Amino acid sequence: MAIFSQAGSRRSWLKGAASWLVAGFVAWGAAGCASLSGTDPLPSWADGPARQSIIDFVNDVTNEASPNYVPPAQRIATFDNDGTLWVEQPMYTQFAFMIDQVKAAAPRNPQWQDNPVYKALAANDLKGALAQGEKPLLDLLVQANSGMSVEDYDKTVRQWFATARHPTLKRPYTEAVYQPQLELLSYLRSKGFKNFIVSGGTMEAMRPWTEAVYGIPPERVVGSSQGIVYDGTSLMRQPKLHFVDDGPGKPVGIYMHIGQQPILAFGNSDGDLQMLQYTTTGPGRRLGLLVHHDDAEREFAYDRQSPFGKLDKALDEAPKRNWVVVSMKKDWKQIFPGKP
Amino acid sequence: MAIFSQAGSRRSWLKGAASWLVAGFVAWGAAGCASLSGTDPLPSWADGPARQSIIDFVNDVTNEASPNYVPPAQRIATFDNDGTLWVEQPMYTQFAFMIDQVKAAAPRNPQWQDNPVYKALAANDLKGALAQGEKPLLDLLVQANSGMSVEDYDKTVRQWFATARHPTLKRPYTEAVYQPQLELLSYLRSKGFKNFIVSGGTMEAMRPWTEAVYGIPPERVVGSSQGIVYDGTSLMRQPKLHFVDDGPGKPVGIYMHIGQQPILAFGNSDGDLQMLQYTTTGPGRRLGLLVHHDDAEREFAYDRQSPFGKLDKALDEAPKRNWVVVSMKKDWKQIFPGKP
Repeated sequence: MAIFSQAGSRRSWLKGAASWLVAGFVAWGAAGCASLSGTDPLPSWADGPARQSIIDFVNDVTNEASPNYVPPAQRIATFDNDGTLWVEQPMYTQFAFMIDQVKAAAPRNPQWQDNPVYKALAANDLKGALAQGEKPLLDLLVQANSGMSVEDYDKTVRQWFATARHPTLKRPYTEAVYQPQLELLSYLRSKGFKNFIVSGGTMEAMRPWTEAVYGIPPERVVGSSQGIVYDGTSLMRQPKLHFVDDGPGKPVGIYMHIGQQPILAFGNSDGDLQMLQYTTTGPGRRLGLLVHHDDAEREFAYDRQSPFGKLDKALDEAPKRNWVVVSMKKDWKQIFPGKP
Repeated sequence: MAIFSQAGSRRSWLKGAASWLVAGFVAWGAAGCASLSGTDPLPSWADGPARQSIIDFVNDVTNEASPNYVPPAQRIATFDNDGTLWVEQPMYTQFAFMIDQVKAAAPRNPQWQDNPVYKALAANDLKGALAQGEKPLLDLLVQANSGMSVEDYDKTVRQWFATARHPTLKRPYTEAVYQPQLELLSYLRSKGFKNFIVSGGTMEAMRPWTEAVYGIPPERVVGSSQGIVYDGTSLMRQPKLHFVDDGPGKPVGIYMHIGQQPILAFGNSDGDLQMLQYTTTGPGRRLGLLVHHDDAEREFAYDRQSPFGKLDKALDEAPKRNWVVVSMKKDWKQIFPGKP
C-alpha cells in the first residue's frame, strides 16, 4: 500500500483516518476493476507519475484509433540488466562471476602471482584491483574466461548461479531481481511488446537464466561478448573482447541485433544514456525510463559517484528529454519477489 | 504418447496390445484432424525421401513421447538466404544492389575513375571486376555503401527493391524466392519452431522485407555487417567490414545472435558447410539439408564450379553426415510463387 511510504511525514489523526478510508476505497475499486478485467498488471508499482506514464504510453501505442498507434511487430522494448532488472551493488554480478573464474584459473596461470590485479582480487580487494586501472582488470577477466568451448563455459555459468548468493541480500542472484520490473516485462508482453535485454554484461552470463526469470529467451539478450571462433568441431572462447555493449555501443548493439529502433528503453546509469537518446529520438511516441536507486533501506542508494552504475549525465538529461525517473523508494511498493 | 518411450521395458502382452489400441485411436484422431484442419503443409514438395525426412524429423522432435522430443523454446531452425531461400544467380542480389550503389556514388568519388574494379563494374563486366581479386571488389562495395545514416541507407534499400528486377526471371527479387521454402518456413512455424536467416549477405539488405516475404522478423536475421557508430544523434555506416557471417563465421554468428544451437539447418553451398556441421553435431536428433541446384530449365544448374554458391565440399560431406540433398528438379514441384 502506497500510504505506508508516507510514514514519518506529518499527518493529523483525521488525515490519517481519511487516508485509510481512501485506501479502503482504492482497494475496493481496484478489486472491482480486477474482478472485471483481471488483476492489476503492476501491483508493485505505487500510484504516481511513473506508473501512470507507463500505462498511458502502453494504452496509447496499442490503441488502433490513436495517431501514436504502433503495430505489434514494432513494439520493441529494451531493458538494461545491471541495476535496471536486478541488483548491481556492491558490484556487477558479472564481475563476481568472472573474478571467481580468475581464482579457479589461477593454478593453471602461475604467472599471475606477480600481477597486482590478481593479487588484489585474490585478497578480495576489488577496490585495489580497480585502482590498477580498468584495462588490466578487464584483461585478466577476459583471459580467465577464455580457452574453453562455449558449452563448457555455459556449464560453469550454470553451476555458479546454482550456488552463488548475493553477499548482503543472502539470496540467489536470480532472485535479486526487481519484482516491479518482472511485472512490467509481463505487462508489456501481454500488450504485444517484444522485450529485449541490452546489457553491458556478457551474453553468456545472462542467457542461461533470462527466459526462466524474465521471460526473455536467449536470442533476445544483447550484451558484450568475447571473441569466438569455430574450429571445425567446437566454438572456442578467445582471450579478447569482441564487442562492448555499453554507452555508445548500446545503440549499435540494438541495430546489429534487433534491427529496429525501440519505442521504450529502461536503464539506470550513464551506460544507458545513448540507448535512451537513440530510443527517444524520432517520430511517434517514445518512452525513456531510469531507475533511481534511492532506497538505502530496502536496496542501495547511489547515483552520481558510484563505481558501478554511475547515474550522472543521464540524470541531468532526463528532465530535458522527458525521461521518467523512477524512484525505487517512492514508486516501488515491493523490491524483490516473494518478500513484500 | 508416453507409452512409446516404454519400448524396451518389460511389458505384458495385454499392456502391449492396449498401447497399440491407444496408438490406433491417436492416429485416427490425427487423420480426422488433418481432414478437418486442412491442407497438405508442403504442397510444392514432391513425395520422396527429402520431403519425408522433413516430416519425419518434425513429427519426431515435436512428439512429447519421443526420446528426441525438443521443447518449443529450443526448436531453432536456421536458413541460409542466397540460393537456399531465393535465387543467387547470375550473381548475389546483395552484389547487384551494392554495385548499383557504387554507380550512384561514383560522381562523388572521382578517384574511382582509375580503379580497375570500378571500371569493370561501370562496364557491367562483373567477371572483370572479380578478376582483380575479391578484396579490391569488397573494398569498393564497402566504401560505396558507407558514410550515411542507417535510416538513409534503409530508404535506399527499400527503393531499390521496389523497382529492381531479376535480369532473367524478370520479376522483383522478393518474388524470386522459392515456393517450397515458403511452405517449409510456414510449416515449421506452425510446429513451434523459431526460424532464423543466417546469411553471408548483409543484414541491412534483408531486414526490410524478410518479415513480409518469409515471416521472419528483423531480429531473426543474422548476416554480415559493416561497422556502425553512434555519433550522439544517428547510427552512421563506417567504410569497413564488422563481421563476415559466412563459412566458419556462421556458427559464430549463430552463437552470438541466437545463443542456442539449431536443430535444423538448411543451406546450399560451401559457405553453409560449418553451419551444417555445427547444427548436426551433438546429442538429440538433428537435420541438415542442402538445396542442389540441378534444374537449368526452371532455375539454374550449378554446383562444384560456380563463382556464386559453390557447392563442393559440402556435397561430398553430405552422405557421410546424413545431410539431405534436396534436388530442385525432383523434389520441388513448383519453384517460384504464383507460377506452377
